[in-house]
Amino acid sequence: MKTDSSSSIGIFDSGIGGLTVAKAVIEALPEENIIYFGDTARVPYGIKSEETVRNYALQITDFLLSKGVKMILIACNTVSASAKDEIIKAAGDIPVLDVITSGTDAALSGEGGKDQIGVIGTLATVNSKAYVRSIKERNNGVEVIQQACPLLVPLAEEGWIDNVVARQTLHTYLSYFDETNIRSLILGCTHYPLFKDVIAQEFGGKKIDIIDSAESIAETARLKLKELRLENSGGGKLECYVSDRPQRFQELAERFLGRSLGDVQIVTLS
Amino acid sequence: MKTDSSSSIGIFDSGIGGLTVAKAVIEALPEENIIYFGDTARVPYGIKSEETVRNYALQITDFLLSKGVKMILIACNTVSASAKDEIIKAAGDIPVLDVITSGTDAALSGEGGKDQIGVIGTLATVNSKAYVRSIKERNNGVEVIQQACPLLVPLAEEGWIDNVVARQTLHTYLSYFDETNIRSLILGCTHYPLFKDVIAQEFGGKKIDIIDSAESIAETARLKLKELRLENSGGGKLECYVSDRPQRFQELAERFLGRSLGDVQIVTLS
Repeated sequence: MKTDSSSSIGIFDSGIGGLTVAKAVIEALPEENIIYFGDTARVPYGIKSEETVRNYALQITDFLLSKGVKMILIACNTVSASAKDEIIKAAGDIPVLDVITSGTDAALSGEGGKDQIGVIGTLATVNSKAYVRSIKERNNGVEVIQQACPLLVPLAEEGWIDNVVARQTLHTYLSYFDETNIRSLILGCTHYPLFKDVIAQEFGGKKIDIIDSAESIAETARLKLKELRLENSGGGKLECYVSDRPQRFQELAERFLGRSLGDVQIVTLS
Repeated sequence: MKTDSSSSIGIFDSGIGGLTVAKAVIEALPEENIIYFGDTARVPYGIKSEETVRNYALQITDFLLSKGVKMILIACNTVSASAKDEIIKAAGDIPVLDVITSGTDAALSGEGGKDQIGVIGTLATVNSKAYVRSIKERNNGVEVIQQACPLLVPLAEEGWIDNVVARQTLHTYLSYFDETNIRSLILGCTHYPLFKDVIAQEFGGKKIDIIDSAESIAETARLKLKELRLENSGGGKLECYVSDRPQRFQELAERFLGRSLGDVQIVTLS
């Protein structure tokens, strides 16, 4: 399909978390139209085999391409880790960005990313060592210290963002970094930007760059569209598709997006 | 397949939670052999359609029947809610018990189950209203007050059973019952027996029956085997099968079972 500057940006995730990316893109590029796909019928991807994740990701890529998107943002760490190359190949001329690459670049270019970088993520992301590989490929001298925070996704979906449970949970997880000298922390899961303020408070007086990969990928997208002269003006629409339970998605969306959503449409992929 | 008293009891769940049922059965019936199946490749069931859950449950039933079990225990609330009748039909002469029926019977027969019964469970179980229906079918005069506790499963799987986060989470969820007069609380999820002590402490001086459906179904199984004269003597083996990630299952198993596991075997169902 022929794309031009008025075409939409496609963003996808295994579920709802990628809406933090959509939010960051709306803030960085308010004139762009966005098509979001959340694979709510098959979430979570982290417990599935790489082959299965690749199949799902390619189905979603086909769907977004059929909608004529001019760019694809992989707003899912599991897909970024295991299917990025296949998606780039399937997308042909359409540029593809992913949260891991954007987050890594942002961490390494920051003041705090010189010696030690901390990464927090789901168990699946941490076990995949995708951030470790991505950072080491660019700068082998940087030490990467990972900590899995499996409770943060369910906390975010319960809406417990800064209550006493959320604070105590983050305190427990982040105390793992007490004995380190990290000055940069990558939020390696698209749900985690919701906890950014509490995380910053947890580090208290310590100077630390908190790398919000949603913001990083939005900034990369802005630069890329500028470079390709594909910037839109006069758009600003957000269209959401899910593979199951649109109502639940709509209920949770406001928390992730900071505003309410219109209709959410169901699509069955196979 | 011909079954007799030396045959195993089959227990299954969508994942690891059903091991609390296995534990209760081992305590109530230490001479029985147990075959456990956890569908770790397809967990969680709660977000899937009833039709899909029924298909999965029937595949597992076939697997357990092929192993020659003399009884099947459905240790999964989602399956109990949506596929019990189909499993009973598929199992023919082999008796089938489920956690919802056992939990309901135990709650209603207790001192506290006369006027108001509380139920805690996952979002899927609470939304399905399966406990409400099951209780009302037996005694329409009892009021059922449900509270979803979505964070308890991830807390249990993280091993945070009685730390400050677990206590604060339970305090927040259970304060919902402050304005009620419940004297009976059903733990409507197979993960929840891990929190039984903290839950009891949370109700403090209040006299309340805490209905552990793992214990209830184990007791029902004991009586049923006695009635059918199918009790074993000289067994006591536990055989575990999962559909994915046997190592993760093994790591978590000790917490649910109170003891370590031997080998866990992988089975692919379809």
